[in-house]
Amino acid sequence: MKALVYHGPGQMRLEDRPMPFIGLATDAIVKITKTTICGTDLHILKGDVPSCQPGRILGHEGVGIVAEAGAGVTGFAKGDAVLISCISSCGKCEYCRRGMYSHCTSGGWILGNSIDGTQAEYVRIPHADTSLTKIPPGADEEALVMLSDILPTGFECGVLNGKVAPGCTVAIVGAGPIGLAALLTARFYAPARIIMIDLDDNRLATAMHLGATDTVNSSDGQAVAAVLKLTDGRGADTVIEAVGIPATFELCAEIVAPGGTIANIGVHGTQAALHLERLWDRNITITTRLVDTISTPMLLKTVQAGTIDPQKLITHRFTLDAIADAYDTFGHAADTRALKVIITA
Amino acid sequence: MKALVYHGPGQMRLEDRPMPFIGLATDAIVKITKTTICGTDLHILKGDVPSCQPGRILGHEGVGIVAEAGAGVTGFAKGDAVLISCISSCGKCEYCRRGMYSHCTSGGWILGNSIDGTQAEYVRIPHADTSLTKIPPGADEEALVMLSDILPTGFECGVLNGKVAPGCTVAIVGAGPIGLAALLTARFYAPARIIMIDLDDNRLATAMHLGATDTVNSSDGQAVAAVLKLTDGRGADTVIEAVGIPATFELCAEIVAPGGTIANIGVHGTQAALHLERLWDRNITITTRLVDTISTPMLLKTVQAGTIDPQKLITHRFTLDAIADAYDTFGHAADTRALKVIITA
Amino acid sequence: MKALVYHGPGQMRLEDRPMPFIGLATDAIVKITKTTICGTDLHILKGDVPSCQPGRILGHEGVGIVAEAGAGVTGFAKGDAVLISCISSCGKCEYCRRGMYSHCTSGGWILGNSIDGTQAEYVRIPHADTSLTKIPPGADEEALVMLSDILPTGFECGVLNGKVAPGCTVAIVGAGPIGLAALLTARFYAPARIIMIDLDDNRLATAMHLGATDTVNSSDGQAVAAVLKLTDGRGADTVIEAVGIPATFELCAEIVAPGGTIANIGVHGTQAALHLERLWDRNITITTRLVDTISTPMLLKTVQAGTIDPQKLITHRFTLDAIADAYDTFGHAADTRALKVIITA
Amino acid sequence: MKALVYHGPGQMRLEDRPMPFIGLATDAIVKITKTTICGTDLHILKGDVPSCQPGRILGHEGVGIVAEAGAGVTGFAKGDAVLISCISSCGKCEYCRRGMYSHCTSGGWILGNSIDGTQAEYVRIPHADTSLTKIPPGADEEALVMLSDILPTGFECGVLNGKVAPGCTVAIVGAGPIGLAALLTARFYAPARIIMIDLDDNRLATAMHLGATDTVNSSDGQAVAAVLKLTDGRGADTVIEAVGIPATFELCAEIVAPGGTIANIGVHGTQAALHLERLWDRNITITTRLVDTISTPMLLKTVQAGTIDPQKLITHRFTLDAIADAYDTFGHAADTRALKVIITA
Repeated sequence: MKALVYHGPGQMRLEDRPMPFIGLATDAIVKITKTTICGTDLHILKGDVPSCQPGRILGHEGVGIVAEAGAGVTGFAKGDAVLISCISSCGKCEYCRRGMYSHCTSGGWILGNSIDGTQAEYVRIPHADTSLTKIPPGADEEALVMLSDILPTGFECGVLNGKVAPGCTVAIVGAGPIGLAALLTARFYAPARIIMIDLDDNRLATAMHLGATDTVNSSDGQAVAAVLKLTDGRGADTVIEAVGIPATFELCAEIVAPGGTIANIGVHGTQAALHLERLWDRNITITTRLVDTISTPMLLKTVQAGTIDPQKLITHRFTLDAIADAYDTFGHAADTRALKVIITA
Repeated sequence: MKALVYHGPGQMRLEDRPMPFIGLATDAIVKITKTTICGTDLHILKGDVPSCQPGRILGHEGVGIVAEAGAGVTGFAKGDAVLISCISSCGKCEYCRRGMYSHCTSGGWILGNSIDGTQAEYVRIPHADTSLTKIPPGADEEALVMLSDILPTGFECGVLNGKVAPGCTVAIVGAGPIGLAALLTARFYAPARIIMIDLDDNRLATAMHLGATDTVNSSDGQAVAAVLKLTDGRGADTVIEAVGIPATFELCAEIVAPGGTIANIGVHGTQAALHLERLWDRNITITTRLVDTISTPMLLKTVQAGTIDPQKLITHRFTLDAIADAYDTFGHAADTRALKVIITA
Repeated sequence: MKALVYHGPGQMRLEDRPMPFIGLATDAIVKITKTTICGTDLHILKGDVPSCQPGRILGHEGVGIVAEAGAGVTGFAKGDAVLISCISSCGKCEYCRRGMYSHCTSGGWILGNSIDGTQAEYVRIPHADTSLTKIPPGADEEALVMLSDILPTGFECGVLNGKVAPGCTVAIVGAGPIGLAALLTARFYAPARIIMIDLDDNRLATAMHLGATDTVNSSDGQAVAAVLKLTDGRGADTVIEAVGIPATFELCAEIVAPGGTIANIGVHGTQAALHLERLWDRNITITTRLVDTISTPMLLKTVQAGTIDPQKLITHRFTLDAIADAYDTFGHAADTRALKVIITA
Repeated sequence: MKALVYHGPGQMRLEDRPMPFIGLATDAIVKITKTTICGTDLHILKGDVPSCQPGRILGHEGVGIVAEAGAGVTGFAKGDAVLISCISSCGKCEYCRRGMYSHCTSGGWILGNSIDGTQAEYVRIPHADTSLTKIPPGADEEALVMLSDILPTGFECGVLNGKVAPGCTVAIVGAGPIGLAALLTARFYAPARIIMIDLDDNRLATAMHLGATDTVNSSDGQAVAAVLKLTDGRGADTVIEAVGIPATFELCAEIVAPGGTIANIGVHGTQAALHLERLWDRNITITTRLVDTISTPMLLKTVQAGTIDPQKLITHRFTLDAIADAYDTFGHAADTRALKVIITA
């Protein structure tokens, strides 16, 4: 089968690889229909993710059709249309029982990382019963690809952890796909104000289109002042970090209101400064989280109900044969204005 | 001044009454600009509310201008435009400190009940600092009259207590003003489905206009079957009772899903049957609540942000001189299709 | 093997029955070491539980040793000492994913009800990975039998649902084993007062021994007055119903404080009156729940830490051969002062 | 009257000062019976608290008798025995209405900081109705001095924010008075394990005496390894920082379990490093908080119920005339083994 294989920093190739097969009775093999590329895939290509070794098929998002189900799989059968969660969960370990699938002792984020992933014609999904979700008849498959990772990540790590609530003020630092996913799902809770902060005016314009009430281009270094002005000096109740560098995290800490929450989504590669001398008496909360994908069934309901339209995050489409172009387009988002790209296998 | 006075069951008169005056330093006198009539006022007129004695000026909703502020009032001054909460709260007692203003030991629902109310040219507001809310410049005063009682009641007693959540299914029994207020504020949480149940097709049509996804006319006695059909046999996650009679409460208990919540808003005059033999193992929650009006500042933000438009609940307008006509119109809602009536003082 | 078999109302016999065998790969066969009798077993014997048909082996509590594990069982192996949960859960269905194992679509309370139970030498446990808990070396097995049902039931249905909190006042109606389990686990949250209400002075004395601060013998019909007197007229913040008849439920509604919670544990056979005309404005919550056994791992930690001593609930010991005597002793608790009886298989 | 006055870094004097008087109608004058010294007072004396200017009477803790109540005070009268909260709250502003008294717009921590404090014969208490608590007859006044600051601080900032729960593992870094207050109140929630970490073996011994299950002397630089060993490599569910320097905060981040919480109590003077590169995917929460004293009524109930004995934190007693000795003793705690010192006025 065709598969996109990582060969060390800066190197990847679409290759012919053997078909995956059922290893454990709880595995399923899924024929990929559509997949996509995540910012994390770019991190891997930079060599920033040591758990992902050369030879690995990339990708942790996608929808497809069950090609084969192991003998222990009870919820899915050959031919079922399924959504693949970026997180594999056994449903049995202490973390899974607590709803913290991200830390499943035999799962977590392994797809396209420590086991082969979804940017291929077929993929093996471990713990299939608790890592796949059935796609209802007639659903928009492209939209559902956004439910593999980006929407649960924006929602769980940003919106839920950030305690977005009716009437509150939300600030989101970073208007890339993840920041926009947080924006879309923050609107579930009717905040009075969503302030989007980024360096790129195009992305800020997209954010306004998707429901932001205000935008701040932080390239002039005056973002703190701008947010404080918009909030009568109070700051934002919820601040969502969707970039992953010290400067943006530290910006969050300067614009959070007393009693507010900073919800980190960004994947960080280095430490940040935490100004406890200013924050110790501000009654704030800071959260980190690797997405658990516990909200996938709920998100599917909102997509089916038309409450949210994830299609709005899709800007480009490619075939699996042209996946190199897809990476190129996604990797140069400032020029291409790419958000999420759909790859049809 | 002119005031609508209750004179015992079935009797009320617009009369000339002495101006109210500051009794305690924490009182304020408010010149009423706009007020309205509540279903509870009709209950009083039927003689169902013994705490409200003949001679009482009715009304517990309204907006106005501070005419005089007691020496102990620090947050408001003469000339301030204010929203009056139906609940008076001292901010000091154990219940107020817990956010349960409805049970304030020197307040609670006293306006137009145990002290004179707002259907008059002037009203005395006890505990003014913690019972009034400033109206921002340019706000729509008519819309804000809906924040005195009906919107916080629908929201706190129905939506908050009912734990409405993204993707969930809500059923609201009763599409009168309170049920519709619950509907409007339930939408803050992006439920996938809001099923409205009533006997009156006009009100159900209004509910669809305000965002219901489905309606059930219960006049054929088949409401339970209809709701179960709409929910694949599960029932609704949140069921809101907005009528106040045993039959509607008992209906709620038949359509609540396992793990769901019945949030009672209705003012009940008699006991209902609780079928514990069916419910004991269903993991359900039943709540009651007299509105605390703790959500008023938040609701004001959502009105100012345009997230919610309470104007949609207003169907008729009268002057204080014609308040008898207003009662007549509001009291015959099935014929007049009245929801909330605005009375300009 | 020997097993206690139900043969219709009033009839049960210790018989020789075939050994259970692995049906599904996720099953395990457990050799019972110790089991016990639950009030629900008495209900079955009265014919009150139609889902339990004649021919059924009774019992849903116990500890034992894994005799055989199906091919799909990954967490347990032959020889493991295990605690059996009264609730079987697949870990995969919507309810299990929400932590509501009681409503597992292929589990729930089935042991000794719709499938054969634990009052036998061997039992088949479906969904073994998610329905068994490993027993740490050196643990007190008798104490752990209390973790199959009674302690999680008292804790989840009574204490957790009842929102017991530091400094609060708890009233528990019913000082039988379940009420006492609620008492023991209520103490996890340092309530200032735990008032125990029962008709039996012996049980009330036991309650005092286990940490109640006050007792009320309700046989004089003055329990409401007594509780109000103990609470300066306020009532209790948490009221736990641990009997299961209309009179005790209705008592709960009379002694709950404004803002308080009534947490029902009792198994009810008939409807109760809900006095909404008194309760609609009292801001109360009523909950029902079939135990989910989600707290079993936590309870095990508290037993191992010595925070709680479930041995205190054990009053009698029998062998499996003498299980008829055990039922007799447990069924005449008023005379025998039995709480929980241990049966060694 | 006699009062301890701050005269700039390193300087304080017991002096004769004019009696305080009612400024606003909501003020009360309290004759101090007993007061104490807080670590924050030592910070002021080092010149670390710029809001506290020379000439200020120090102290923000104490009990006393109301000597005079302003005309607007309704809850207290001359002669009432009262507990003084270290936080003054108006009960009216947005923050007070949200229960965040620490950020009251006309209060917060002002006593002995921006207004004169309690280390004197008399003190003026602003917002008396919402900043004082009545002392029940017969209560232990010395014990209640611990409720002015240290117990609500340990409880709210450490235990509540840290989400201590039955069966969990708590680690507390710092066994000074605040860390010990966190320990005492953590026990409200029946954690299975409380690990106390400090450099001082005497304080660790005290911690064991007060209910810690394990201690770690961190002077060997091996505290991380020691805590991980005690927790099977997982770390602690709740980690409470009760020191206030970067090293201890950073230690907390190394011993928190996935899904756990770091609750900061320490008053920090400088930034700390936040290793987001290790924490971003660990699902952790970090909280900061200036005590709100919302838990004071609850804590009073637990003291009255005997659930907690704050006397255990008191090591020394002085008269107001000897307050310089009290500071000396408290300031050299390593030598004197002082925890809290009681000063009788």
